[in-house]
Amino acid sequence: MFQLVLVNIGNHFDLKASVFQAPRRGIYSFSFHVVKVYNRQTIQVNLMQNDYPVISAFAGDQDVTREAASNGVLLMVERDDRVYLKLERGTLMGGWKYSTFSGFLVFPL
Amino acid sequence: MFQLVLVNIGNHFDLKASVFQAPRRGIYSFSFHVVKVYNRQTIQVNLMQNDYPVISAFAGDQDVTREAASNGVLLMVERDDRVYLKLERGTLMGGWKYSTFSGFLVFPL
Amino acid sequence: MFQLVLVNIGNHFDLKASVFQAPRRGIYSFSFHVVKVYNRQTIQVNLMQNDYPVISAFAGDQDVTREAASNGVLLMVERDDRVYLKLERGTLMGGWKYSTFSGFLVFPL
Repeated sequence: MFQLVLVNIGNHFDLKASVFQAPRRGIYSFSFHVVKVYNRQTIQVNLMQNDYPVISAFAGDQDVTREAASNGVLLMVERDDRVYLKLERGTLMGGWKYSTFSGFLVFPL
Repeated sequence: MFQLVLVNIGNHFDLKASVFQAPRRGIYSFSFHVVKVYNRQTIQVNLMQNDYPVISAFAGDQDVTREAASNGVLLMVERDDRVYLKLERGTLMGGWKYSTFSGFLVFPL
Repeated sequence: MFQLVLVNIGNHFDLKASVFQAPRRGIYSFSFHVVKVYNRQTIQVNLMQNDYPVISAFAGDQDVTREAASNGVLLMVERDDRVYLKLERGTLMGGWKYSTFSGFLVFPL
């Protein structure tokens, strides 16, 4: 999904699967901005932690060329937890261009 | 307002009042995404520090099922300062569903 | 552009030029929310690192009083790198009111 990883210190983000795997227990900050190109569908993007949705974001405007579904959260993450984005509803024509997904450790536990 | 607190290390977020009270002086990062369900009103959400508005965000589209008023900021916060969200304008039918409010200490002072 | 700097610890943000200059090498978190007042233009805002665009955000709705172009990213930044926002497309009538731009060091390298 993501074609370019700007920062991947520790190599805990798997580019091919677009999944972040936590190297250690702690509080992490995650945020995402998924950009939808013009089409008539509403998209819903979920931030997933081990296959469970934690938060959602929406983008649904039909008049707009590009619109972002954005959200962010602090999460308590166990070691080896997997955190990733899932397109729950709708399609992304043109792929994930301009979309970002960031996470970092705020403090270890 | 917020029905679920995902992370509340230190117990400085009062769920009932939805107010964060700073345990110590420092720079904090705050961000919020308040999701509006379809209605004809524009909402304005303020991030408040001790009853003063610091930043605002808006959502006003009438064609969109769900739209978020989002913003974020770094704030210098004194010990015992209260930081919270206030719906300055408009109403949230269906409540604060899908909305998030996150804050963490970037560094102490 | 920005009329008010809420936090500028270390004095590495030049208010006049609205440019952040990194005091040291490391991973920084940057986020921005640029608010467009009603007009018929689409805006594109780029986050620039030393004159190269890193990420973009868009706001283009004609029906909305205020709409934000938001995005955020983790960046590997060298000492003395300059990071700033650039309005790549469109105009901001009324200036950068309600817009925010935040950055902080996540960890040094």
